[in-house]
Amino acid sequence: MSRERIQDLRAQVDEINMQLLDLLNQRARVVSEIGKLTQQLGTSFYDAQREAEMLTALEMANKGPFSNETIKALFREVFRASMALEEQQAKAKIRVQRSSPDQRTVIRMPDGTELGNGKFQVISGPCAVETFEQMDETAAALASRGVKFMRGMAYKPRTSPYDFQGLGEPGLQIARQVANKYGLYVVSEIMDASQIPMMSDYVDVLWVGARNMQNSFLLKALGRVNKPIILKRGLAATLEEFMYAAEYIVSSGNPNVMLIERGIRTFEKATRNTLDIGGVAVLKLESHLPVIVDISHSAGRRDIAIPLARVARASGADGLMVEVHPNPPVAMSDAKQQLYIDQFHALMDSIEDMEKTFA
Amino acid sequence: MSRERIQDLRAQVDEINMQLLDLLNQRARVVSEIGKLTQQLGTSFYDAQREAEMLTALEMANKGPFSNETIKALFREVFRASMALEEQQAKAKIRVQRSSPDQRTVIRMPDGTELGNGKFQVISGPCAVETFEQMDETAAALASRGVKFMRGMAYKPRTSPYDFQGLGEPGLQIARQVANKYGLYVVSEIMDASQIPMMSDYVDVLWVGARNMQNSFLLKALGRVNKPIILKRGLAATLEEFMYAAEYIVSSGNPNVMLIERGIRTFEKATRNTLDIGGVAVLKLESHLPVIVDISHSAGRRDIAIPLARVARASGADGLMVEVHPNPPVAMSDAKQQLYIDQFHALMDSIEDMEKTFA
Amino acid sequence: MSRERIQDLRAQVDEINMQLLDLLNQRARVVSEIGKLTQQLGTSFYDAQREAEMLTALEMANKGPFSNETIKALFREVFRASMALEEQQAKAKIRVQRSSPDQRTVIRMPDGTELGNGKFQVISGPCAVETFEQMDETAAALASRGVKFMRGMAYKPRTSPYDFQGLGEPGLQIARQVANKYGLYVVSEIMDASQIPMMSDYVDVLWVGARNMQNSFLLKALGRVNKPIILKRGLAATLEEFMYAAEYIVSSGNPNVMLIERGIRTFEKATRNTLDIGGVAVLKLESHLPVIVDISHSAGRRDIAIPLARVARASGADGLMVEVHPNPPVAMSDAKQQLYIDQFHALMDSIEDMEKTFA
Amino acid sequence: MSRERIQDLRAQVDEINMQLLDLLNQRARVVSEIGKLTQQLGTSFYDAQREAEMLTALEMANKGPFSNETIKALFREVFRASMALEEQQAKAKIRVQRSSPDQRTVIRMPDGTELGNGKFQVISGPCAVETFEQMDETAAALASRGVKFMRGMAYKPRTSPYDFQGLGEPGLQIARQVANKYGLYVVSEIMDASQIPMMSDYVDVLWVGARNMQNSFLLKALGRVNKPIILKRGLAATLEEFMYAAEYIVSSGNPNVMLIERGIRTFEKATRNTLDIGGVAVLKLESHLPVIVDISHSAGRRDIAIPLARVARASGADGLMVEVHPNPPVAMSDAKQQLYIDQFHALMDSIEDMEKTFA
Repeated sequence: MSRERIQDLRAQVDEINMQLLDLLNQRARVVSEIGKLTQQLGTSFYDAQREAEMLTALEMANKGPFSNETIKALFREVFRASMALEEQQAKAKIRVQRSSPDQRTVIRMPDGTELGNGKFQVISGPCAVETFEQMDETAAALASRGVKFMRGMAYKPRTSPYDFQGLGEPGLQIARQVANKYGLYVVSEIMDASQIPMMSDYVDVLWVGARNMQNSFLLKALGRVNKPIILKRGLAATLEEFMYAAEYIVSSGNPNVMLIERGIRTFEKATRNTLDIGGVAVLKLESHLPVIVDISHSAGRRDIAIPLARVARASGADGLMVEVHPNPPVAMSDAKQQLYIDQFHALMDSIEDMEKTFA
Repeated sequence: MSRERIQDLRAQVDEINMQLLDLLNQRARVVSEIGKLTQQLGTSFYDAQREAEMLTALEMANKGPFSNETIKALFREVFRASMALEEQQAKAKIRVQRSSPDQRTVIRMPDGTELGNGKFQVISGPCAVETFEQMDETAAALASRGVKFMRGMAYKPRTSPYDFQGLGEPGLQIARQVANKYGLYVVSEIMDASQIPMMSDYVDVLWVGARNMQNSFLLKALGRVNKPIILKRGLAATLEEFMYAAEYIVSSGNPNVMLIERGIRTFEKATRNTLDIGGVAVLKLESHLPVIVDISHSAGRRDIAIPLARVARASGADGLMVEVHPNPPVAMSDAKQQLYIDQFHALMDSIEDMEKTFA
Repeated sequence: MSRERIQDLRAQVDEINMQLLDLLNQRARVVSEIGKLTQQLGTSFYDAQREAEMLTALEMANKGPFSNETIKALFREVFRASMALEEQQAKAKIRVQRSSPDQRTVIRMPDGTELGNGKFQVISGPCAVETFEQMDETAAALASRGVKFMRGMAYKPRTSPYDFQGLGEPGLQIARQVANKYGLYVVSEIMDASQIPMMSDYVDVLWVGARNMQNSFLLKALGRVNKPIILKRGLAATLEEFMYAAEYIVSSGNPNVMLIERGIRTFEKATRNTLDIGGVAVLKLESHLPVIVDISHSAGRRDIAIPLARVARASGADGLMVEVHPNPPVAMSDAKQQLYIDQFHALMDSIEDMEKTFA
Repeated sequence: MSRERIQDLRAQVDEINMQLLDLLNQRARVVSEIGKLTQQLGTSFYDAQREAEMLTALEMANKGPFSNETIKALFREVFRASMALEEQQAKAKIRVQRSSPDQRTVIRMPDGTELGNGKFQVISGPCAVETFEQMDETAAALASRGVKFMRGMAYKPRTSPYDFQGLGEPGLQIARQVANKYGLYVVSEIMDASQIPMMSDYVDVLWVGARNMQNSFLLKALGRVNKPIILKRGLAATLEEFMYAAEYIVSSGNPNVMLIERGIRTFEKATRNTLDIGGVAVLKLESHLPVIVDISHSAGRRDIAIPLARVARASGADGLMVEVHPNPPVAMSDAKQQLYIDQFHALMDSIEDMEKTFA
């Protein structure tokens, strides 16, 4: 008896669902037309005043059983869905998002080296340029393993103004000279838009540090530069904020952006930061940009570098970044995390072992 | 021209809104009746299978412009709203939530002392019971300032099994003896449901520690106890989880629950935890339970105890908890955060100064 | 001139260093003897009063140039080092710490299956036992891939008391019956020490959930059980706290403990938690216990399960845990993260591909 | 018997302590002289190579019982203390640290208004300048309550490049015009060093946003500006990093810096961020700079603005910042957290009530 009644009632619900569906789509079509017209008039899609008025009208008309709060919440969802529809039609969706599973941005260097084409790349070198000898010894090791991208950091953003701030332009000269000797590309951090012309003389790939990830002034300026950009995730940036930061560069004209995950700040102090490897998987799913895993800053210690390199390789990332120094204990920064050169070779061996099996 | 067209289209949207409103409420009435019938049949409100079928039907009928994903998302909101409506009608909403601005739970002790009635209360004492002399000296100070609730902790949940785990039942005996001498109530941590009978002989208020906040087995057992419970927020519990943990106790039969905010675990290490004072304001807004601010575990240092006591007083909380010890440097736990007795008096002076102005 | 003077001064520093070295070791020997004597007297190593007196004496004798604060800080380091030395000599160091690079705990099951012996193991099954059919279909899939450990969860610790709390003992009966049919081991969560006798009838491996990681009462009780224990990391537990929680079990008598990393709570919400893969590497370095990676709760979404499974395999962990359900959208909990059965097969294929290359 | 032996041994320890004390201070004097000489030679205090050699020598000479690791750790502390001593003598210690309990930086404005002198100040206004009318209505309310500092934000750093980025210079013109009409000071965010000359024409106090807290390029440039700076804490910056960021400005020549705590990013989502009120107490203890509490961005919701304003007042902070807008629901940013003007008046009433009692 009551089971039959339930069947009847459910049929009524099904009927109402279909009417709701029709009305929602009908509404979407009308709102979409409004969107096109307002756009022609140069006004924004989003009209908070209008939404407030609609909500007030609904509230006054509502007789329940849904409460006014529920009705307003449901309609806010409808408004949001409609607005999403308009934005989607009016402009391309966010450019750094993947539109099909096989879409990928491949960074091509002058000699044909590619990053993001499925081959795993290594970016390496010391935390900072200190001397010619230090760079030369490191570069020789990199070149002997086929690494093409060398850290040549001459401007170091540091917590304290009394810490070593980098060698500046003389450091870039050293990096360039050594890179030329070994056929490497110089990757170097830029700290301000005003440095772009000078740095362009020495540097092949411009690096935006974690502290500048949301420096939109700098990001827009880098959108007008004709060099690849590595964008480092801020230490407490969400993946959504990270992708929007890349969007600042790409929407300003420069499509050659790589994302580098470098660990996020959490309560755990056994590692310097917490490598967000799940975030790497999400980025590879949602964006077509190459993703690099920084196993040095995320760990802050060299004794887990090899397992983390293997993790990076297995995660689907396009490459890894690892710091290496001829004599880490005397390094002027990040002494605890830079690899010795023999550790670097052991790490490369370990990745190459994995490569064979993935080939 | 196009402005007029926009006006027309907006009028259409208004009309559709009203039709949607009618349909939604009509749907709610039907679903509500289904809910009553299924309840009589003894089945659950929530029928995932049925929802899945409805979503599939909508997906098949959908011709856009809304995408299937959007339609499913919107209907899931409608389903959720309908279910919320049924639950609300069938049972009281979550009991610890405030239903009116002036609803408040007041904890009444045998001698008429109240907690949660608008008067600011202080809970104090050492981190752990160590000796009779230590408790006696502390209790004398508390009593001299009109404090009624004394920490008498005899079971200490510690990170390491090799750390001091508390004196156990002999500690409770000391606490009871001292409390009786000075007319105080004993507040003491319970670690397992099996301790309830024994502890009930000594303790006036049972304390659930941060590590046990989501020990639902213990919470349900405390719901059947006829003593007030202090529930401490877990170190990474959201406010929602905190309120649901209290709900376990209240829905099991014991309405006399106090919430204690003790700082959450964050990246910042200048303080032991981060006192979530905004969370205190939110709890006072959303729940009728008394809220206490633990200024000892949140700070982990005694040099900011007085400003934090003033903050607690100003936040609208019902009281504060502060640790005090006759000789903090030799305390067996939490040596850095317990106040010296003269600091305790200074803190009480400071709060009393504020009290005068709020009276 | 001044370079020579610097050389002289540096030689003086070298001389002082050696005198300091002698004195420090001489001090360590005396303190060590005190330690042995106080231990015979049954008193604690740590005497805060004595330390306070020594610091006061040093402060009074100090004539600079070091400030009193610096002197006290340096001596506190000396005190701490001396105490560490005593503790190390008096008792074995923390048992779960690795004492040599090749020390490992291997969990042996009755049929000879081992966990922790270098072979990568998979633990799988639905979030919770719901019906016989659900378990039967899942178990068949597990058995077909050689998986030996099946989730058979019948007690679910949930945020809300109104959420599904598990089937209880009837759920355990289903799990046991299905496990026997397919030759699997039942892994099931225990919520309170009082459940041990009953659960021991049905369950092969007892699981301690994240909310109970620091329930020392339960941990000690599990130390007296003759079954392997899986200990899940608390959602905001440090690695140090995690290892100490395992120490509670091991020091109470049960050496068969596995650690499971399940993601930590951070600000990032794209994943349900943040998988701490660096933490896995640290645990493998510092402990001899097997370490499992939970790729379901850490991600909270099934679309990145395969890359995370590969990451787990590459990290050096001893196994992974993944939830699988015949019909995830209708699951009574964790609907978004459980794999479909065909996804489970794809994940197993992916791991087996890696296995070949690591063999 | 063994108690007497313990007494003897303790006397030996006391003797060794005094010898260690002498040696440490003797060492400090020699190292200090080396420091002066190396400074004359223009080389750095810190010589990692030299430290490495000393540690190696100690390791080779060490015969225990202290392990090599312990010896190296202890000497690293000694090295660090010596270096701290040298740095302290060579240059002033970190300038933003308080050197005596009553040291305070007071910001003086042209009309004699002071911030940091013990009187509690309010900084208020809308999130962003939108129209003249909006600013005019807000400014009238501020002026009627004696508020002197008005938000006049014309450059908005936003997560998405497609969000409202501020009106730019026309917005500054509006802010200046309105401020002049009501006798207010304009506080406005600067995003890049290149904006300094232009903004100086309109703005009285330059504001550095959370995303730029560690933009050392900008901070150094602001150190050469003759206007007060408000420095906002980064959303995951430690207090130490925050103070060092201020040090960049102060050490570059501008002493007039205010610190603004705006909530840190944590797992809790009931509030937009977690107001670190304990951090405010620590900053007031450790620095002489004025500290402001931002109750809008920390909460992200206006319904707890009044308790948080009272908390800010009680914390010992020098002022608070609160957003107010004539019509929050239509605001172009931060719609949920800006106060209505009548709420602003209620908030001012509440603070004034507290003021009376603190006077």
